[in-house]
Amino acid sequence: MGTEQPSFKQVRKRIMAVPGDDFDLRDHPARDETLFELKEDAVASAEADAFAIDELQDRLYAEGKRALLVVLQGMDTAGKSGTIKSVFRATSPMGMTVKAFKKPSSSELARDYLWRVHDAVPPKGFIGIFDRSHYEDVLVARVRKLAPKDAIAERYEQINAFEKLLVETGTTIVKCMLNVSKDEQAERLKARLEKPHKRWKFNPGDLEDRALWPDFMKAYEKAVERCSTTHAPWYIVPSDSKSRRNAIIARLVRGALEDMNPQHPDPGYLPEDFEIS
Amino acid sequence: MGTEQPSFKQVRKRIMAVPGDDFDLRDHPARDETLFELKEDAVASAEADAFAIDELQDRLYAEGKRALLVVLQGMDTAGKSGTIKSVFRATSPMGMTVKAFKKPSSSELARDYLWRVHDAVPPKGFIGIFDRSHYEDVLVARVRKLAPKDAIAERYEQINAFEKLLVETGTTIVKCMLNVSKDEQAERLKARLEKPHKRWKFNPGDLEDRALWPDFMKAYEKAVERCSTTHAPWYIVPSDSKSRRNAIIARLVRGALEDMNPQHPDPGYLPEDFEIS
Repeated sequence: MGTEQPSFKQVRKRIMAVPGDDFDLRDHPARDETLFELKEDAVASAEADAFAIDELQDRLYAEGKRALLVVLQGMDTAGKSGTIKSVFRATSPMGMTVKAFKKPSSSELARDYLWRVHDAVPPKGFIGIFDRSHYEDVLVARVRKLAPKDAIAERYEQINAFEKLLVETGTTIVKCMLNVSKDEQAERLKARLEKPHKRWKFNPGDLEDRALWPDFMKAYEKAVERCSTTHAPWYIVPSDSKSRRNAIIARLVRGALEDMNPQHPDPGYLPEDFEIS
Repeated sequence: MGTEQPSFKQVRKRIMAVPGDDFDLRDHPARDETLFELKEDAVASAEADAFAIDELQDRLYAEGKRALLVVLQGMDTAGKSGTIKSVFRATSPMGMTVKAFKKPSSSELARDYLWRVHDAVPPKGFIGIFDRSHYEDVLVARVRKLAPKDAIAERYEQINAFEKLLVETGTTIVKCMLNVSKDEQAERLKARLEKPHKRWKFNPGDLEDRALWPDFMKAYEKAVERCSTTHAPWYIVPSDSKSRRNAIIARLVRGALEDMNPQHPDPGYLPEDFEIS
């Protein structure tokens, strides 16, 4: 291997939003080469971690007692899809669930906003990925005033309590904000327009969120400050470099799984003279 | 690539249970090196197909209009998990759903047997995998008499009608019986006992199905004969060789996707002077 990998501790320390502290996005640059100075190191690290994640996931599945939930949030083009593809490139789809949260259906709107989220949590033994999440309910919902102000103000603590339930009942949560700059987003939107195989992803409606960029950043700051907890801290992932973004998130996921340290279950007793006939 | 790959047509012709014909498992050997004489060719073919499947899946997702359902059935150790891991090794978990059908819950038993199956079909744009399926309801249910004989007799046509609905509404179905011999199963069960990291998979209860091997084979023959239809034919995959099994199923999946030929959607009109600000 021989590639330069920062330790899990170094990664976490560098990008965690410290629970209880004030949070200012300006302290978290979207481009940050501190952890992986060279792109090649990031690529090699992400690849090595992907294979380690696969092996750990096999054990998580075999154990069948706990789950890992990876929450991915970010502005359009921040790279949620690319992250999933890279970090879980070696993992069998069999032990995974992926839930993309879109605009709620009328059936979902008829329930509280956490109802559809609870329904989508990973079963024991699985890694679950949320592509967007319940945080939309304090991000876009706040910026676009999709719910009364008072109701939104109550959501931060409701979310903390909900996540605490998940953690206390056996689910480790890794929350990543994919932090992309407005300039980098412009480049990526242009690429979508220019490359035929990306063109379908472009939707002029996406520009409406872009026009509200400062409001979204304020909403992110508040969500991170209020909901980075000791049981489920937020990580602010510099995402202007795709390779470093992938490498950092792979480190976080691998680190979380190694901390969980899942074990093959005890196979139980078989008689000495047991034979397959 | 330069590796020897049989065409989709050759693979299908060799292993399809022809709709309307009598079906005898003895015509379908569990070890068959006709399609891939050399193991290395099978490995290379499976790898090339995995990357092609990834690219096709991206287009299926972009198009968002149709789905592919891959049904995997087989006796214990036939390699359902290994197949999923191999064939979809390059595919992002984001565009996939995997449903493992276990013993039905009390809530599921309170509905008709296809209720939970319908609930699990892949959404448009997705590849869905069934690890076991509604065929359990004419396999184990038949062998172990889990439902009245008359009720089971009615299921074959019910299944055909259900699959026809899926096909007519945009889902292509690829049904694979992973055909493993009783001798090979014995070897694989022994390996589970002997290898520490496989030991957890072994359950003495699995031997109960093994003891009923001839009954299960009869149930498979009947299910395949009755439910290999022009809209959703059955493929009998020789599975005593893992590399050839993977290569054959990768060919089937890739072939199905190429026949579907999904397209990036029309991006629609943008004004000449459109700019991202």
